[in-house]
Amino acid sequence: MTQSPLPVSGAWRSGDPPGSRRFHTFATDHPFALEGGAVLRDVTIAYETWGTLNSDASNAVLVVHAWTGDSHAAGRAERGHETPGWWDDVIGPGKYVDTDEWFVVCPNVLGGCQGSTGPASPHPDDGEPYGSRFPVVTIRDMVRSQASLMPHLGIKQWAAVMGGSMGGMQVLEWATTYPRRVRSIVPIASCMQASAQQIAWGVIGRRAIRLDPRWRGGDYYEAEPGDGPAEGLAIARQVAQVTFRSDNAFTQRFGRNLTDRAQFGDTFGLWQEFEVERYLHYHGDKLVRRFDANSYLIIGKAMDLHDLARGRGTVERAMARINVPNLTIGINSDILYPPYQQEHLSRLLHRDGMVSEYVEIDSIHGHDAFLIHFDEVGAPIRRFLERLD
Amino acid sequence: MTQSPLPVSGAWRSGDPPGSRRFHTFATDHPFALEGGAVLRDVTIAYETWGTLNSDASNAVLVVHAWTGDSHAAGRAERGHETPGWWDDVIGPGKYVDTDEWFVVCPNVLGGCQGSTGPASPHPDDGEPYGSRFPVVTIRDMVRSQASLMPHLGIKQWAAVMGGSMGGMQVLEWATTYPRRVRSIVPIASCMQASAQQIAWGVIGRRAIRLDPRWRGGDYYEAEPGDGPAEGLAIARQVAQVTFRSDNAFTQRFGRNLTDRAQFGDTFGLWQEFEVERYLHYHGDKLVRRFDANSYLIIGKAMDLHDLARGRGTVERAMARINVPNLTIGINSDILYPPYQQEHLSRLLHRDGMVSEYVEIDSIHGHDAFLIHFDEVGAPIRRFLERLD
Repeated sequence: MTQSPLPVSGAWRSGDPPGSRRFHTFATDHPFALEGGAVLRDVTIAYETWGTLNSDASNAVLVVHAWTGDSHAAGRAERGHETPGWWDDVIGPGKYVDTDEWFVVCPNVLGGCQGSTGPASPHPDDGEPYGSRFPVVTIRDMVRSQASLMPHLGIKQWAAVMGGSMGGMQVLEWATTYPRRVRSIVPIASCMQASAQQIAWGVIGRRAIRLDPRWRGGDYYEAEPGDGPAEGLAIARQVAQVTFRSDNAFTQRFGRNLTDRAQFGDTFGLWQEFEVERYLHYHGDKLVRRFDANSYLIIGKAMDLHDLARGRGTVERAMARINVPNLTIGINSDILYPPYQQEHLSRLLHRDGMVSEYVEIDSIHGHDAFLIHFDEVGAPIRRFLERLD
Repeated sequence: MTQSPLPVSGAWRSGDPPGSRRFHTFATDHPFALEGGAVLRDVTIAYETWGTLNSDASNAVLVVHAWTGDSHAAGRAERGHETPGWWDDVIGPGKYVDTDEWFVVCPNVLGGCQGSTGPASPHPDDGEPYGSRFPVVTIRDMVRSQASLMPHLGIKQWAAVMGGSMGGMQVLEWATTYPRRVRSIVPIASCMQASAQQIAWGVIGRRAIRLDPRWRGGDYYEAEPGDGPAEGLAIARQVAQVTFRSDNAFTQRFGRNLTDRAQFGDTFGLWQEFEVERYLHYHGDKLVRRFDANSYLIIGKAMDLHDLARGRGTVERAMARINVPNLTIGINSDILYPPYQQEHLSRLLHRDGMVSEYVEIDSIHGHDAFLIHFDEVGAPIRRFLERLD
């Protein structure tokens, strides 16, 4: 459950060719008041960049990540990131978001565990991990903490802000909170406010983590490595994992085979595994190795609290603040952020005489399709960016 | 977590007008070999009946229940059953399944906790609850154990076998295992074999119960009352509860309101409840009071193992054994047993020249609609039974 060691300076990473990619952290020098009432005394935001900012700083694209994502949107597998960037097929030189043209920035969210301030970070009072002391943050807090990157990087306006799932929530908060700092937006498989069903899945995951005795009320960092709430986190992840995929994708891939009938002979056992169960275990265990359970809780709660309308009257009034070209992408088999929500969102973004497009990806893979079908999601993004130029 | 005390004789229940309803138990006098290889030394099946068996025993209808249901399909709330029968609006004198005409039998399933042999029952070796010693049972085992009721009651053939969800699984196993003992069938919102997604939800619930330290590997009956795996069972139930309902039903009913923002002042807290969360807690806690966690595990596993094709080649070959009038009912908003599965099932039941009907209920309530929209589910059943006569 321990956090992966990550470099915490603005220096070039060794092994990265200069100009190709940078990992930085940026620490604010003033207290950060959260929407929920608490104050963080200092906030560090880890981020990576690809490409080069042009002379008038007009080519900056902000890419924002989903629940268990991080700043490593593109690039190779490496220390601290055991897989290539989560959008490595979308972002890069000559790719859909072409880093020969665009300067791409991807921050790790506030509350995360991959370099930005989160529950595993040292509390300024005592240098011990925040743990249970870490306050609830909101999507709006994440966005406000990212805004401090703009003067730091010399950017006055993002050419585009894009992201899927929780990334899409940040996209919408960016455009609503800072309408003049955003020139266009690409929300993908996301929502304007969490629905009761989305919240319900979140609640169940949180309760599973809390039930794990090794969670210790959130203060498990002193425990031996590997003695954190791995099972609780794995169950929470499995709940999410099922909602991220689809009935048909599961049937096609796993059917209803048992993995280890042989081991049990011809008998059935209560803990005998189905193929789909092994898959869920694999994904649960994989997350446990790279992600902090408290970050999972904090970020999940932020998604459930996501509500563009909070403090702004209605969703419609909040969305009316957004007056920029937009591309909304939905996935036809998404059971978590269903297409009808994406179409509704896109309708509210429509402005006469302005580029406003809705694209629905045809996929069996459900919500996760935006992390699987890179061509289907990348191609409309490239077309959209070309029309902006 | 303790089992509700239930009468265990075939006598009239005090307070029931003679002829209206009876609760019985029936104990087999020989070992019962389970499909999974284990043997139960004795099996008791609790059941209730309504109406009167006619002289040629041609008016017997078997009603089979879902996961957390029991034999109390109709009748008042009473000791051991804190709510009226789960189909009380469907079954009774003058109702859709008219007990002035039909003799209705509803057994509690094998593995259950409402009178039939299950994990909380005494093991014949030592009189202590089976607990972790209770073997995995299958839907086929449930049906075979119910078959022993037929000679006991003097019934050679059921006029109809009907049930929803896991009840529908039993309906199909009845007609496939005992084609000549079933004159017609009514499967509702069910399936021919559990899909990978259905199994995935089951797996997650089981792991949540196992994670609860108070589950004690299944041997928690010695614990103080109220010290069983209540939280694990509640989480498992909540997973199921979300799949039993629908996105839109939740939105309409709960929106995304917090229940206790006032209590937290203007701040947000990690465990601050949304309305939908309170609803989930309510349903989780309600189940915990009336249902045994081990029965939940055993019955859930039985559903995941449900596969009409096992030992019979293919689903199509298994379904070809069924050659009786049939009515299949689906629900358009069911995300767990989606309408396309019901239509597929109904197509495989179609025989030229035989009553074979598919009815889809239009409801916002999802899978649970068959326990909510009594008129919509009852009316086609009455029409179907009338056509049988």
